[in-house]
Amino acid sequence: MRGVQRYWCERAWLGGEEAEAGVVVSVEADRIAAVERGHAAPPAGATRLEGVVVPGFANAHSHAFHRALRGRTQRGRGSFWSWRERMYEVAAALDPEGYHRLARAVLAEMALAGITAVGEFHYLHHGPGGVPYDDPNAMGEALLAAASEAGIRITLLDTCYLHGGIGEGPNETQRRFSDGDAERWGERAAALAATAGARIGAAVHSVRAVEPEAIAVVAAWAADRDCPLHAHLSEQPAENEACEAAFGVSPTQLLADNGALGPGFTAVHATHLSDEDVGLLGGARCCCCMCPTTERDLADGVGRARDLLDAGASMSLGSDSHAVIDMLEEARAVELDERLATNERGRHEAPALLEAATSAGHASIGWPEAGRIEPGAIADLVSIRLDSVRTAGAADGIDAAVFAATAADIDTVVSSGEIIVAGGRHRDVDVPAELSAAIAEVTA
Amino acid sequence: MRGVQRYWCERAWLGGEEAEAGVVVSVEADRIAAVERGHAAPPAGATRLEGVVVPGFANAHSHAFHRALRGRTQRGRGSFWSWRERMYEVAAALDPEGYHRLARAVLAEMALAGITAVGEFHYLHHGPGGVPYDDPNAMGEALLAAASEAGIRITLLDTCYLHGGIGEGPNETQRRFSDGDAERWGERAAALAATAGARIGAAVHSVRAVEPEAIAVVAAWAADRDCPLHAHLSEQPAENEACEAAFGVSPTQLLADNGALGPGFTAVHATHLSDEDVGLLGGARCCCCMCPTTERDLADGVGRARDLLDAGASMSLGSDSHAVIDMLEEARAVELDERLATNERGRHEAPALLEAATSAGHASIGWPEAGRIEPGAIADLVSIRLDSVRTAGAADGIDAAVFAATAADIDTVVSSGEIIVAGGRHRDVDVPAELSAAIAEVTA
Repeated sequence: MRGVQRYWCERAWLGGEEAEAGVVVSVEADRIAAVERGHAAPPAGATRLEGVVVPGFANAHSHAFHRALRGRTQRGRGSFWSWRERMYEVAAALDPEGYHRLARAVLAEMALAGITAVGEFHYLHHGPGGVPYDDPNAMGEALLAAASEAGIRITLLDTCYLHGGIGEGPNETQRRFSDGDAERWGERAAALAATAGARIGAAVHSVRAVEPEAIAVVAAWAADRDCPLHAHLSEQPAENEACEAAFGVSPTQLLADNGALGPGFTAVHATHLSDEDVGLLGGARCCCCMCPTTERDLADGVGRARDLLDAGASMSLGSDSHAVIDMLEEARAVELDERLATNERGRHEAPALLEAATSAGHASIGWPEAGRIEPGAIADLVSIRLDSVRTAGAADGIDAAVFAATAADIDTVVSSGEIIVAGGRHRDVDVPAELSAAIAEVTA
Repeated sequence: MRGVQRYWCERAWLGGEEAEAGVVVSVEADRIAAVERGHAAPPAGATRLEGVVVPGFANAHSHAFHRALRGRTQRGRGSFWSWRERMYEVAAALDPEGYHRLARAVLAEMALAGITAVGEFHYLHHGPGGVPYDDPNAMGEALLAAASEAGIRITLLDTCYLHGGIGEGPNETQRRFSDGDAERWGERAAALAATAGARIGAAVHSVRAVEPEAIAVVAAWAADRDCPLHAHLSEQPAENEACEAAFGVSPTQLLADNGALGPGFTAVHATHLSDEDVGLLGGARCCCCMCPTTERDLADGVGRARDLLDAGASMSLGSDSHAVIDMLEEARAVELDERLATNERGRHEAPALLEAATSAGHASIGWPEAGRIEPGAIADLVSIRLDSVRTAGAADGIDAAVFAATAADIDTVVSSGEIIVAGGRHRDVDVPAELSAAIAEVTA
């Protein structure tokens, strides 16, 4: 224990419409002990955080290994489905050691971007041919170790993935994802243990990969443990069509009918929704996790975030396939892409977008005590420079952060009370070097 | 004269499908003298350029002063039209000295982003109330000086702007834009002189601001001088509606009918086009300048770049309002935003996007001898790091540059044979400090 650490924030966003000037945040162990306004200058012994300080970001939807595909899937006409073939090639090359090395680098890249907690949607469970590793959770534990070494918290959203499509068996790669049935999925996942920096949640991969009865099993598993439940939802029109053809209802309705919806449920993407689907998700107070840089990359389309919020849903954000790891870009992209779809500006303003990236995001992955700069909250602080070539002149506060800054402007990151990034450099990880080495292993 | 300078490029994009390894570029004065492949290591005395080297970027559509709005127009529901009111407030605060200071900083920000030539679409000609300055081209000359000090080339696209809308007089701010009629516009613009680093072109602001007869005058002025002619085209549906109502034709048809279209013409935005419009622009071998980060910001919509290229048009890119200054982001955004609109990937691949950012862009603003790494071309070289947190692991070449790198990855910029940026820092300008100071003056 180092006693109380004090941070003086030139400006800090405390959840209001604007950032406030001269805020001192006192941190004891992993918690914020006090927040004091009105300090025009740093008190003696305080660490100075320049620019604007915001709570740590939650990356509510991640597939860490997809980072290996960055810049490698951009030739040739194609679609989400042809991209998926490339993604499966990387998946096929991973074992627990390689996955640990890759995830450690990717989660450290997240730390540099101000992300202090990640929701890892994890479905690559088994060895080649679907044969379990000696430790059946070896792959999940590789992710937990990676997060710890990167200095960020993780919610391992252990994912049930049983079928290659509705009524289809898994293919060769997908066999590595499948536990055979939902009960065996639940037994394996139940052996995973939470730690101070790690929590366990559940996920239904999608209505494509999990049949209705199994959805109900996973939903009950999550409800029993009061843990987060996530699912990919209506990312592509083809999923809607297959679901309607097989079950006569939309994917949202199918999840609702099998007990998945509720305040602990996060629908990932939620792109192609009917008005009824929007009403179901909003009425059940679900969270919707928008992943706009991935949705651009995979040609998914523009989701209905404004409508979902108006209907009562909350919103979190994820970098998903990691074509980009930049929560500020994710935040503004929700607004900018809706502008393209509607010809209207100002559907989501900076405070609401920051809330999605912080408090709502942490709640979405089961850390409701994080994502706010207030006494009692987990001590995550991110300072964003306002004197870079990107942000200089762009006003003083959170609009500059959300609409002009990038991950390259993040200077200092405090995660669970520890400084893990200072001057834009990770305390423990040479991120580019480790990324290069780990990716070379799986793309050779 | 410094004699021949040699640059060894770890990889260089010479216009093909991929970058090539180990290229030596010899530069004499402002021209490329030789390009030699197959140098696995740097020859003695050569300057080492790591990552991938591409030609200098052309920013084919810029309004330098809009940079002052970055991060300052993001509150409240609104549209292109409400944004324009904020933009006019900044315009109203500018005089030649303030404009020079602001433009110098903005054009130096462009230099940091690898931009070696800018097409400045310049319409803020006169003093308050529309009274000409003692030197009627004082504002344009402020821009020419700014470019010279920033170390980049400029094409001053002197813009004819006569009306506040079809059949309307200019408002108080717009009076500063207007020369009264096209003949007086032409007399004033004819007094501007080209230099080694500056060329003069013409622009029709839009069919909203210039009546058909005046469009014909401006088009003839440009044709007489064999200089580029640009016009904003169909950025918003309201322009199409007003044009149809007044003249019974689309804006594209109106420009065609008044002699504007041809290989020297660049249509900026070209967002809301009919199939007939696409056919006119393509058939006349026009260039279309896409400005996707601005089109996102202003809720314009997604243009038809693929269709325009298929019809025979060329494509250039512009950062326009400077919500972002990053030609790599502009390049990939053309593809990514079309993916959102079409659910299809791979409509524009990296070589074609780089061509838009380089050779086609320079041609669009009247520097056809720039934008290629080949003997005789103007010596513009930009090195993009492939070992940053963004680019590490993202393959070796131009796909990583176009789909993963940002302006923050640009290390060295050679512009007209001079190194103006090294290690990501401008040779002469403290860009963030000058941006802050200049913007504070006009937003106080």
